[in-house]
Amino acid sequence: MSYSNAYAPSAPELPESFVQQQHDGESRYTYAYPSYQPTQQFSSYSGMFSPETHPEIVRSFESADRNRSGFLEESELRQALSLSGYEGISNRTIRLLLFIYKIPVDSLLRLGPKEYVELWNCLAQWRAIFNRYDRDRSGKMNSTQLRDAFYNLGCVLPTSVHQLIVSQFDDGTGKTVDLCFDSFLECGMIVKGLSEKFRENDPGYTGYATLSYDVFMLMVIPFIATYD
Amino acid sequence: MSYSNAYAPSAPELPESFVQQQHDGESRYTYAYPSYQPTQQFSSYSGMFSPETHPEIVRSFESADRNRSGFLEESELRQALSLSGYEGISNRTIRLLLFIYKIPVDSLLRLGPKEYVELWNCLAQWRAIFNRYDRDRSGKMNSTQLRDAFYNLGCVLPTSVHQLIVSQFDDGTGKTVDLCFDSFLECGMIVKGLSEKFRENDPGYTGYATLSYDVFMLMVIPFIATYD
Ligand SMILES: [Ca+2]
Ligand SMILES: [Ca+2]
Repeated sequence: MSYSNAYAPSAPELPESFVQQQHDGESRYTYAYPSYQPTQQFSSYSGMFSPETHPEIVRSFESADRNRSGFLEESELRQALSLSGYEGISNRTIRLLLFIYKIPVDSLLRLGPKEYVELWNCLAQWRAIFNRYDRDRSGKMNSTQLRDAFYNLGCVLPTSVHQLIVSQFDDGTGKTVDLCFDSFLECGMIVKGLSEKFRENDPGYTGYATLSYDVFMLMVIPFIATYD
Repeated sequence: MSYSNAYAPSAPELPESFVQQQHDGESRYTYAYPSYQPTQQFSSYSGMFSPETHPEIVRSFESADRNRSGFLEESELRQALSLSGYEGISNRTIRLLLFIYKIPVDSLLRLGPKEYVELWNCLAQWRAIFNRYDRDRSGKMNSTQLRDAFYNLGCVLPTSVHQLIVSQFDDGTGKTVDLCFDSFLECGMIVKGLSEKFRENDPGYTGYATLSYDVFMLMVIPFIATYD
C-alpha cells in the first residue's frame, strides 16, 4: 500500500450515466460565478451550467434555489437532495457536504452550479457503491463492506484508522452497528475532508505535517461541532 | 495571552462544595482498579472511593452500576447523569465525556470510580459557570457569554478559533444559535480534548506539532464520527 493511496482518496469517478455528457472534463465549465447580490434574480439557469450537464441536475438546482440567489444555501440543498432521492440525510451530513464542496474562496456555506454538479456526481457514485455492497437491500452496510466500499472509492485507509472508525459505530454495548447510507456518507466525507486538509499541509507527500495549534484547531473543528 | 494559556485549558477547579472534602488532592486516592471480570459482583462501593468523596457521588455510582462491573458503561453513565440533574445530554456528548474521562489504558469506553469523581466535579463546575452566564435563566448562552465562560474555565481560545466555533452554531441562515448546556458541554469537551491531544504531541510547548497522517486521523476521529 503506497503512502499516497493510504491517505489521499482520489476524486470520485463520475458515474457511468454522466460520463457520456462530461467526457471532456472540467475545461468546458465556462460560466462565471455571479457576484453575490441578494436582490439579483435569475430567470435562466441553463447558462450557468456547462452544456453537457445532465438536464436533471439543472432542473434540480433551479427548483431548489428558492431565493433566486444563484446559489444553494443549506436549507435549499437539504430540499434539493430530498427531492432527488436522497432522503434521510442528517443535518450534520448536509453541513459536511456543504463544507467540503463549497466554493473555497466563499466565506458562506453554499454551492454554486459547478459545485452542485460535483456533489451530485459524487453522491450518485457513492449511492451506487453503497447499493453494490448492500446486496440484501437492507439499507445497511457492515464494517467489512465499508472497507471494500472505501477501497472502491479510491480510498485505502490504514487498518488502525479503519478499526477506529468502525469502533465509533457501536451501540454502546460493544456491538458494532451497521451503517445506513447517511452514516456511510458522513464517514466518507470525514475521511475525504480530513485527508485533503492534511495533504494541504504536506505538500511534499512526506506523510508528515507540522501544524501550529491554531491551524490544527481550525482545520478540525469544522468537521466536529455543528448545530443539529 | 501566553501560548500555554491559549491552547492549554487547565484542569477545571473543583467546585466549592467539593473543595472541603478533597483539599488534600489526588494523593489520597488509594483504591486500585478492579480487574475486569464480568462475573465479579461488588457489594460495597465505598472502599473504591477515597474517604473524602462526597457520599452523593458514591451513591450515584453505586445505583448506576447495574451490572455490578465496578465501572460505568455508556448506558449506565447516561442514566447516572440523568438522575443527577443533567437531563438532555445527547448521546454524542455522553460519548465525548466517556472518551475524555475514561481510564487512559483501558480499551473500553467506561469510567471507574476515580474517573467518575473527576467527571462529576467537572460537570458541577461547568454547570455553575453556565448558570452564572445564563442570567435570565433561559437555558441558553450566546457567543460572547461562551467566550467569557471558557475564559473562566481557564481556557483562552485564539479569536479565530472562537469565531469558527460560534459560526458552527448557526441555524443555516447565518443566524447564530444560542447554546444550550449540552452544546456548551460538547463545545467545551471538544476544545479541551483536542487541545490536550495536541499538547501530547508538543511536549516542548513550542506551539507546533509534527504529526503523521495516521496519528492525525487517530487523534481526531474520536471527536467526530459517532453512532447517534
Ligand atoms: Ca439560493
Ligand atoms: Ca457497570
